Amino acid sequence: MKPIKVGLLGIGTVGSGTFNVLKRNQEEITRRAGRSIQITMVADLNTERAKELTNGECEVVNDASLIVNHPDIDIVIELIGGYGIAKDLVMKAIANGKHVVTANKALLATHGNEIFKAAQEKGVMVAFEAAVAGGIPIIKSLREGLTANRIQWLAGIINGTTNFILSEMRDKGLDFDVVLKEAQRLGYAEADPTFDIEGVDAAHKATIMSAIAFGIPVQFDKAYVEGITKLQATDIQYAEQLGYRIKLLGIAKRTPKGIELRVHPTLIPAKRLIANVEGAMNAVLVHGDAVGATLYYGKGAGSEPTASAVIADLVDITRLATADPEHRVPHLAFQPDAMNDTPILPMSEVTTSYYLRMQVADRPGVLADITRILADSTISIDAMLQKEPAEGETKADIIMLTHQTQEKNVEAAIAKIEALPTIVGNVTKIRLEQLS
Amino acid sequence: MKPIKVGLLGIGTVGSGTFNVLKRNQEEITRRAGRSIQITMVADLNTERAKELTNGECEVVNDASLIVNHPDIDIVIELIGGYGIAKDLVMKAIANGKHVVTANKALLATHGNEIFKAAQEKGVMVAFEAAVAGGIPIIKSLREGLTANRIQWLAGIINGTTNFILSEMRDKGLDFDVVLKEAQRLGYAEADPTFDIEGVDAAHKATIMSAIAFGIPVQFDKAYVEGITKLQATDIQYAEQLGYRIKLLGIAKRTPKGIELRVHPTLIPAKRLIANVEGAMNAVLVHGDAVGATLYYGKGAGSEPTASAVIADLVDITRLATADPEHRVPHLAFQPDAMNDTPILPMSEVTTSYYLRMQVADRPGVLADITRILADSTISIDAMLQKEPAEGETKADIIMLTHQTQEKNVEAAIAKIEALPTIVGNVTKIRLEQLS
Repeated sequence: MKPIKVGLLGIGTVGSGTFNVLKRNQEEITRRAGRSIQITMVADLNTERAKELTNGECEVVNDASLIVNHPDIDIVIELIGGYGIAKDLVMKAIANGKHVVTANKALLATHGNEIFKAAQEKGVMVAFEAAVAGGIPIIKSLREGLTANRIQWLAGIINGTTNFILSEMRDKGLDFDVVLKEAQRLGYAEADPTFDIEGVDAAHKATIMSAIAFGIPVQFDKAYVEGITKLQATDIQYAEQLGYRIKLLGIAKRTPKGIELRVHPTLIPAKRLIANVEGAMNAVLVHGDAVGATLYYGKGAGSEPTASAVIADLVDITRLATADPEHRVPHLAFQPDAMNDTPILPMSEVTTSYYLRMQVADRPGVLADITRILADSTISIDAMLQKEPAEGETKADIIMLTHQTQEKNVEAAIAKIEALPTIVGNVTKIRLEQLS
Repeated sequence: MKPIKVGLLGIGTVGSGTFNVLKRNQEEITRRAGRSIQITMVADLNTERAKELTNGECEVVNDASLIVNHPDIDIVIELIGGYGIAKDLVMKAIANGKHVVTANKALLATHGNEIFKAAQEKGVMVAFEAAVAGGIPIIKSLREGLTANRIQWLAGIINGTTNFILSEMRDKGLDFDVVLKEAQRLGYAEADPTFDIEGVDAAHKATIMSAIAFGIPVQFDKAYVEGITKLQATDIQYAEQLGYRIKLLGIAKRTPKGIELRVHPTLIPAKRLIANVEGAMNAVLVHGDAVGATLYYGKGAGSEPTASAVIADLVDITRLATADPEHRVPHLAFQPDAMNDTPILPMSEVTTSYYLRMQVADRPGVLADITRILADSTISIDAMLQKEPAEGETKADIIMLTHQTQEKNVEAAIAKIEALPTIVGNVTKIRLEQLS
């Protein structure tokens, strides 16, 4: 069979990893795909570096449109990132009848509906295993492995930067700012870490997973997004005392009223496997109605782990490329014309549990006031810690874990608590999930 | 599109789960597959029960050959088990041009080469996700998700009966016989638990995974198989003290000299995620050269978890059924004519670490004798515990953890140690893996 010809847009970390792994494992990959997969063209602004990395084995250009318009290219790998030029190139590749493999979570989370629709109309495939959780085959598992299930919820540690920071904060008892600098020094966080630490990257990935899991359009604009920048070492320690770890979770959950799609720091029981995922590793917990709980764990980023996912997609497309477009694995696990219109719930409607910490003047009646406010908002308390004031201090910490309640109830209660004269400052609120 | 017609051989635990899940999630499964999947015939010796379970919705027969010979059946699901009549029926289905989905690890581990060859010659698919680790999509992950990788090793907790027993032995400090009875009472172990507790079931599954991972024929007869029947509560406790858990692991590993394929109780560091997989849950750790370590965790058995895997295979086959046979996902991830002939190493050639426990007369010079014997066999010691004799006793326990060494060195050393006059009884030997 004649080889499949691939054009690579961008030969940075993931692109060079893709080139190297494809080369190193060429024999095995060819056997598995049934035919040879060849990167014949590479586009990169830095053509010198691209030539060096590819060792003269393919044509190097600095204009990506030469690849997406090239008649001999079968598959385009988009590794430029972002939703500017990357979007134009992907749409052009599709219009030209080329299959697309991408790692671009930002692009798919914001423009996925348009891209998948164009691809379906043209009869080409868009694959994106590398966009979520690096080398862990989570998209394939959701889309194919768990296809018998009605997915009930999923929860993922899907951003290695923030998970590394949280692991360090816990292990060393340090504050966020200190650990962020350390993470940047070690290369776990970017110079501009905003997308990671504000939870945006995790939200992109959770949005994509929610579309596959629930057969809904990608709706990133409706996701609730809260990062880890406000977390304090003291909350991590209290959580530990209460038997919980704090992780940044991307959660997508089916409820009778609609779908929850949210990213935020979350207390989870320390005994859960996922609570013990440390450093830059990722993990996604998926609960299906037939299979129950399943967990997928591995490296969420990095040159070769992400390349592993890109190449898995190349092989998939290669295997299916001769099949009739009607019978190919649909992009979002459903025939696009049957996509669900279940609404994404606003955060105020979400039901979950909460960790609340407040500083109070150490006076009688304070606790009674707080518990009455909670009761009035129909919030019941699961556990409580009261820390005596330090020597010479007059303020005490009160920590409460609530049972399940609606976010709007907690918001209302917190407003009233903060208005009490005995409360100092704001109430710290961190959500809590049992994940059972 | 016209529906795909499926015949079910056996409607026991997994068969009824398959029927029920296919019915309950019919709408979503149809959308994902792109066409309707219908169980039109069921064969079971107990036709009364089969009619009850299927509610008159399909034809019930007591002769499975009616299904494998029926002109209208596209896919046969074999859930009879064993390698007697099940083999004949599977071979007949293939000869008649029908695709096969099976959960039968015993059949595939012993006759897989013949079955896959027949299927490839006929141009039909044989799928077996349900044969290994229940609902966890491990076969799909090995065959497709990790296709870019040279798999270096895999290690799995793939038998729920033995994992349940080991969890109970550890949690309650009880002996094997006591816990086995409890497991039988609770339904985690069969009345005849031999296949499970002797490690045979795990070895069937490890054999199948080794074929997919390394592109070799299934060679169950070459697997080293050791179950948990000789494990004592005291070893579980010593392992705990040294920072290890004992699990029954199925291991397949690529080495320069050949492939290791072995099942046996194994000490693993307590901090590994896989060491914390408890009860009847399964997990498989796979290490690929590009992606690094990945872990897959979930329910390894049960009606609906296993049905989830069976149906995932039905959907896969349905999606690919119209494609040209040449381009379908090859059964064992490689084109069969390119299958590797790397040998399976005999156990004596395997290199690993060991936990050794011996009872010694409490006299000076005993330790020197033992350590000299080990040194003579080029075995070095990583850790040691010496338990003083209990009050009124004259015998002490010595526990050693060795560094990596060849099995034949340990066998030779143990023979010499057991010959020492100061040693009481046999040396307990349990293998140890760092899994890093």
